[in-house]
Amino acid sequence: MTERDVTIYEVGPRDGLQNESAVVPLEAKVTFIERLVAAGLPVVEATSFVHPTWVPQLADAAELVERLGPEGRRHPVLVPNERGLDRALELGCEHIAIFGSATETFARRNLNRSLDEQFAMFEPTVRRARDAGLDVRAYVSMCWGDPWEGAVPVEQVVSVGKRLFDLGASQLSLGDTIGVGTAGAVGTLLDAFNDAGLPDDVLAVHFHDTYGQALANAYAAWQHGVRTFDASAGGLGGCPYAESATGNLATEDLVWMFRGLGVETGVDLDALVATSVWMAGVLGRPSPSKVVTALS
Amino acid sequence: MTERDVTIYEVGPRDGLQNESAVVPLEAKVTFIERLVAAGLPVVEATSFVHPTWVPQLADAAELVERLGPEGRRHPVLVPNERGLDRALELGCEHIAIFGSATETFARRNLNRSLDEQFAMFEPTVRRARDAGLDVRAYVSMCWGDPWEGAVPVEQVVSVGKRLFDLGASQLSLGDTIGVGTAGAVGTLLDAFNDAGLPDDVLAVHFHDTYGQALANAYAAWQHGVRTFDASAGGLGGCPYAESATGNLATEDLVWMFRGLGVETGVDLDALVATSVWMAGVLGRPSPSKVVTALS
Repeated sequence: MTERDVTIYEVGPRDGLQNESAVVPLEAKVTFIERLVAAGLPVVEATSFVHPTWVPQLADAAELVERLGPEGRRHPVLVPNERGLDRALELGCEHIAIFGSATETFARRNLNRSLDEQFAMFEPTVRRARDAGLDVRAYVSMCWGDPWEGAVPVEQVVSVGKRLFDLGASQLSLGDTIGVGTAGAVGTLLDAFNDAGLPDDVLAVHFHDTYGQALANAYAAWQHGVRTFDASAGGLGGCPYAESATGNLATEDLVWMFRGLGVETGVDLDALVATSVWMAGVLGRPSPSKVVTALS
Repeated sequence: MTERDVTIYEVGPRDGLQNESAVVPLEAKVTFIERLVAAGLPVVEATSFVHPTWVPQLADAAELVERLGPEGRRHPVLVPNERGLDRALELGCEHIAIFGSATETFARRNLNRSLDEQFAMFEPTVRRARDAGLDVRAYVSMCWGDPWEGAVPVEQVVSVGKRLFDLGASQLSLGDTIGVGTAGAVGTLLDAFNDAGLPDDVLAVHFHDTYGQALANAYAAWQHGVRTFDASAGGLGGCPYAESATGNLATEDLVWMFRGLGVETGVDLDALVATSVWMAGVLGRPSPSKVVTALS
């Protein structure tokens, strides 16, 4: 295995495809994940056990995990609640992710809970997962802004993250869900997490490119000491020309930056670009990744 | 006038429009520049006195300067050679820019001169411009890479920049013409210029977003101390879905970052976005700027 300086946590099959209008066939998802692994992505979040009413794009979650075979069980899967955990446990998944909110409004809209109540909801999920030997990642969404509340107080974000960590999450993925954050605010929040006793090796960052800031923010986080970066192959998860453009940071653009910095990602860029070009064909639209466009 | 912490040098009307396939009517160019000035852009490069055979998009350069009236004479204009300077002088332009190359191959292809010979070519242009009281900016193209030669030695770039400065240029715009540079290399080159006696206040940076790196590179340059940034309203100058995507850094995305950093640009973002939306209508295609897409 390649020696890596940073870990790219690939979210294309889950966060990418759940935000695409097209529903990708199961066979193509299997191929996509296998090609991402073959391209050297060390972690590939495979799917989400969310109810298909909400995310029909991922309605085949259980089938997908089964189709991926024994190797597939090591891919993280998102579980929204205990019912999702039950399905992940039945299938033998070894790694789950939960999706918390840093703001009151998004907690109510996305979780149907208050900011405080979300912890009571996540507690049995995390406890049972940990008791069964699973690793738990916690997403913290809306860390740098919320469409309803605007800027989010740093202390509030840190408090939410700390409580999810104290429940038993081994990693926090700090998400700029609507992509409004900028490089200075990235450092400010990371400093506050460090001050609260959470070192950079517990923290991951998850940037969306809605305002074109994702890569600059990732650079700021890397300068700060963060070494785990969420990204989506080909920038899957929202066309830049769509009105509600909320595309993820493209994995290729991140790999290009790290290559220039002499930072080893372990990723074979050519193999990754070829994978994203192929997936763009499946989706029937060009990849929004600049590197994919330039190299293909 | 607004107190500014950084100066955005707007290149949309020249570097943007010269790389668009559509030819924009004169009236629309006049409106575009006037709206950019009204939105608070402190410097707007208006056009280029290049031969219309090479850049038909800017064939109306002289007419445009005349139509802009007395105020228009303070906008920088690109002059490729002494013939271009003659036209700029006749029209009363107060500020010109020349376009040098950091590499042998691009000097030969773009200037039909060797790397060394370009200085002899620029010498009378700069001398005559300075004697007439004009300010001269020098672009240094291909600073971080060249399509034919690959990586460009730092010493070579510094040598070219220093010679253009010594000829009489007051500012060097260091260009990543093909967009391949990354944040670490930005700092390395800026350090080398400083070591050669050129302080950050003589340097501007000019990034293209071909590989998605432009804003991260601008952030790295700002951290280094650079305070003049070239950008193109709406990201004009190359559609991101085109095969030879070489779009400029979008002014709006840069303004968004600086606003988040608490760095005053003097630019009214809403007025700028409205201008780019209008120009997108003139060109008949959406703006590649993420901020324009998100806010419009």
